[in-house]
Amino acid sequence: MARGRFITFEGGEGAGKSTQVKRLVERLRAAGHEVVATREPGGSPGAESIRDLVLKGSADRWSPATETLLMYAARRDHIERVITPALARGAWVVCDRFADSTRAYQGGAGGVEPDLIAALEDHVMGAARPDLTLVFDLPVEVGLARAEVHAAAAGHAETRFESKGVAFHERLRAAFKAIAAAEPNRCVLIDAADGIEGVEAQVWNAVSARLTVHG
Amino acid sequence: MARGRFITFEGGEGAGKSTQVKRLVERLRAAGHEVVATREPGGSPGAESIRDLVLKGSADRWSPATETLLMYAARRDHIERVITPALARGAWVVCDRFADSTRAYQGGAGGVEPDLIAALEDHVMGAARPDLTLVFDLPVEVGLARAEVHAAAAGHAETRFESKGVAFHERLRAAFKAIAAAEPNRCVLIDAADGIEGVEAQVWNAVSARLTVHG
Repeated sequence: MARGRFITFEGGEGAGKSTQVKRLVERLRAAGHEVVATREPGGSPGAESIRDLVLKGSADRWSPATETLLMYAARRDHIERVITPALARGAWVVCDRFADSTRAYQGGAGGVEPDLIAALEDHVMGAARPDLTLVFDLPVEVGLARAEVHAAAAGHAETRFESKGVAFHERLRAAFKAIAAAEPNRCVLIDAADGIEGVEAQVWNAVSARLTVHG
Repeated sequence: MARGRFITFEGGEGAGKSTQVKRLVERLRAAGHEVVATREPGGSPGAESIRDLVLKGSADRWSPATETLLMYAARRDHIERVITPALARGAWVVCDRFADSTRAYQGGAGGVEPDLIAALEDHVMGAARPDLTLVFDLPVEVGLARAEVHAAAAGHAETRFESKGVAFHERLRAAFKAIAAAEPNRCVLIDAADGIEGVEAQVWNAVSARLTVHG
């Protein structure tokens, strides 16, 4: 059995990743693939319990370095218990956020030294590296306004990260764009200000051009 | 103000570390030192919430690699918010378990690759390195029997680590002895099978011989 393909969605708040993950998963299933749809932080029972620790509480509950370690604890559990077994049986894995979010949120925007993050990638991720990463890009004020509407509709307050202010989110956007520019073989920048149908078309074009989809 | 001194207590289950931490703290305070008594995993509000995740649940709830990352997330928070500020104001810090427990539990006994643990020590601990480490050594069957009595007296079941079986605890004991042997300038091996008064004397001899105690 050939290893499955691993696709990650990355980007700031309110970029519409979750909607597009669902649409891509439907198209891949319609093409005959087994697909595991998952997310970070979380994605396994243990990692979801770590997610609660990371996302709740005041914005300064954890330093960016502690957050980085919590994110990698959750990621290791998710990789061991969900991602690696799925890829090994030939399933495709589509994940809403992955390691680039740590680089961008805790590294680029949070100021954690790149050496710590690189060491964790080297020692913790093993072979669970994405084949394709879709980096959703959107002006910060548009993303934060969308995230606020979503939070209100879902009946909850903004998360620790949404509450970090515009300057943080500008650094975050720049960090994601830098990742996409530095790794063009893995990453495709998606214009998330396009309508839902337009973004879906951008995503599908990237997936079908870069990976071998059935059917 | 001179930096305070940092003393850690290490060893397997039921070795009597907690009792001896209390006695040492009393003697150091009687000698005129400000002393911060703390413990790991935990020691700060954030780290205590991570402690709950690590110690509760079934023995295989987390892999040793995930445990290592959770321990270092907790340790980073504890260092930033408790240990470093205390040492900076000249206080002595006495900590029940620290980084050697990760080397021994997750590394030596749990099988985590030493490279991951070394990378975390390098990138996460900063200047928070113990000046003196007291390694409590005890035959495994004696320690586990004592830990069982303590857990019953406290009205709770054994922790995830106590439930890992004798072979695990034999590897643990060997790992702690190897640490003490490899770093004799920092570590003193304590015969924890001695009575409480005898162990207290061993601890005090080590502390007063190696560090400059007031009074």
